[in-house]
Amino acid sequence: MDRRESTSGEDSLIARYFRPLATDPGAFDLGDDAAVLKALGDDIVVTTDAIVEGVHFLSDDPPETIARKALRVNLSDLAAKGATPAGFVLTLALRSADDGWLAPFARGLGEDIGLFGCSMLGGDTVSTPGPLMISITAFGRVPAGKMVRRCGAKPGDRVVVTGTIGDAALGLGILKGGAVATALADDAAAKEMLIRRYRVPQPRNALAKVVRDHASAAMDVSDGLAGDLAKLCAASGVSAAIDAQSIPLSTTAAALFARGVVGVGVLVSGGDDYEILCTIPEASFEVFAQDAGLTGVAVTSVGTVIADTSPPRFLDGQGREIALPHLSYSHF
Amino acid sequence: MDRRESTSGEDSLIARYFRPLATDPGAFDLGDDAAVLKALGDDIVVTTDAIVEGVHFLSDDPPETIARKALRVNLSDLAAKGATPAGFVLTLALRSADDGWLAPFARGLGEDIGLFGCSMLGGDTVSTPGPLMISITAFGRVPAGKMVRRCGAKPGDRVVVTGTIGDAALGLGILKGGAVATALADDAAAKEMLIRRYRVPQPRNALAKVVRDHASAAMDVSDGLAGDLAKLCAASGVSAAIDAQSIPLSTTAAALFARGVVGVGVLVSGGDDYEILCTIPEASFEVFAQDAGLTGVAVTSVGTVIADTSPPRFLDGQGREIALPHLSYSHF
Repeated sequence: MDRRESTSGEDSLIARYFRPLATDPGAFDLGDDAAVLKALGDDIVVTTDAIVEGVHFLSDDPPETIARKALRVNLSDLAAKGATPAGFVLTLALRSADDGWLAPFARGLGEDIGLFGCSMLGGDTVSTPGPLMISITAFGRVPAGKMVRRCGAKPGDRVVVTGTIGDAALGLGILKGGAVATALADDAAAKEMLIRRYRVPQPRNALAKVVRDHASAAMDVSDGLAGDLAKLCAASGVSAAIDAQSIPLSTTAAALFARGVVGVGVLVSGGDDYEILCTIPEASFEVFAQDAGLTGVAVTSVGTVIADTSPPRFLDGQGREIALPHLSYSHF
Repeated sequence: MDRRESTSGEDSLIARYFRPLATDPGAFDLGDDAAVLKALGDDIVVTTDAIVEGVHFLSDDPPETIARKALRVNLSDLAAKGATPAGFVLTLALRSADDGWLAPFARGLGEDIGLFGCSMLGGDTVSTPGPLMISITAFGRVPAGKMVRRCGAKPGDRVVVTGTIGDAALGLGILKGGAVATALADDAAAKEMLIRRYRVPQPRNALAKVVRDHASAAMDVSDGLAGDLAKLCAASGVSAAIDAQSIPLSTTAAALFARGVVGVGVLVSGGDDYEILCTIPEASFEVFAQDAGLTGVAVTSVGTVIADTSPPRFLDGQGREIALPHLSYSHF
């Protein structure tokens, strides 16, 4: 290495691809060992989520969507906690510094930074002989004491989810070439929509303040609605009765369900939805729904919190409990 | 999976090993999707560093020391920036949930949490088929606007390092079975000391306030003194002249150097020192040295900042420039 060249390969990689994204003054152009985050009198909400090649994304997923997913899974946590995005740091474990991969990765990340107003504050790039891994720690702000917890659900509260449930699991099924791929062989647009839902989640940050104003408890749905609802109920010391027919499905998912291609189990246990699951006191529900309407985020009441400590139950149109094969994805 | 068991393997792993470490009220017993960090009117300093098996630590390093190193490399950044530790989040990429590895890992981490007063706020565990990876994002507090940057060094300032330089590189050399291992074949205590310096860095957090009070610029030495000094000088738009003979060495390193087993290049380019490198205005040096003395952290003046833009130069006892083969470790 030329003695005159004082920057290492890692430094020049960071300079080329990531410095242009770090426009926050506290990021110091990624030229220091640390960043400064101003709390501005608020609480700082901290969340961290990593995605691993072959586990959370596929080797041939486009780098642009991998970047978006890495950031968005964290933005989704901030949204569910009622927090406004304030910045993030990125750890990137790469096999090699491949421009053909890094350029679209940085482009996708940069676009989402702008879209969600969440600036890049710093990062670390390391080499690994193993799968790619992207770990992001994201920061949000809430007024002091106002982070929405998992543990405040009360009997009688409505159980509410945003958007639609199950699309991402179907998209992953298509990428893996299963029954869904066969069933949609002639419908390229439907396949593309579902794959997109898997690759590029739509975090509901527009709803963060409404959640903060009205929800008694909230979390994002990352490991499947059934399992995540069970976690929320356990944290709150309650149970829930869910009307499976009211779970919001996309037109495509509803058609696949009606044709018997997929069951309720896949839709509510598949994971990767990144919708918000929250509980809303009955007395606030109307105002909540109105406020949500103003944000453009669809919200659907799917059931009721009940005073019980057994796991939540999913009921069919006749009020019979639906047996679910497994609650959610677990890494171990 | 039993429908009644609402916790996944990942959740129970977190509960068993990491919940006992997360005693900060803002960590919510690791039972929520995010943590709350209170700024208390200060700036939050954010730093992130990942360590990868086979790159930053060896497969057969004890889990207890891997945990300590993962946290300490981040604590070292906070110390160099003049920040008081305020907490951290951990991402752990594991091949399997092996109790024999996780128990000592959590024990080592827990001891360092207590030792450095840096509480665990959250984390994410993911499975990987590849090498182990531990990514930590750590937070510190400084009075508003007082983070010590890399870019404030001025001509005439003293160049100062803490502790001793080069021991960790020699320790790694021993673990790899090179010339150092042969030279120290009969000195188990010396070998153990050097290996310990590689596996368990000693971050200089005790010196953080003194650095904040006096340093014009600072960073920690992670990639080798020569390369990191070049970065500090580049950020400050200055150069430096280093008296190689004044670089603080442990007794063992000095003896190996005197015997010709290792050259200056290995000592100043080897990396993993995790000492603080800072520049101190000449007028403040005496008070700085006194204040440092009260903390018990050894500080040594090794040279002078000069008004030049060429890379810093390392000079021998006759004032001749020492040619260094490469400046520092780069991942790519």
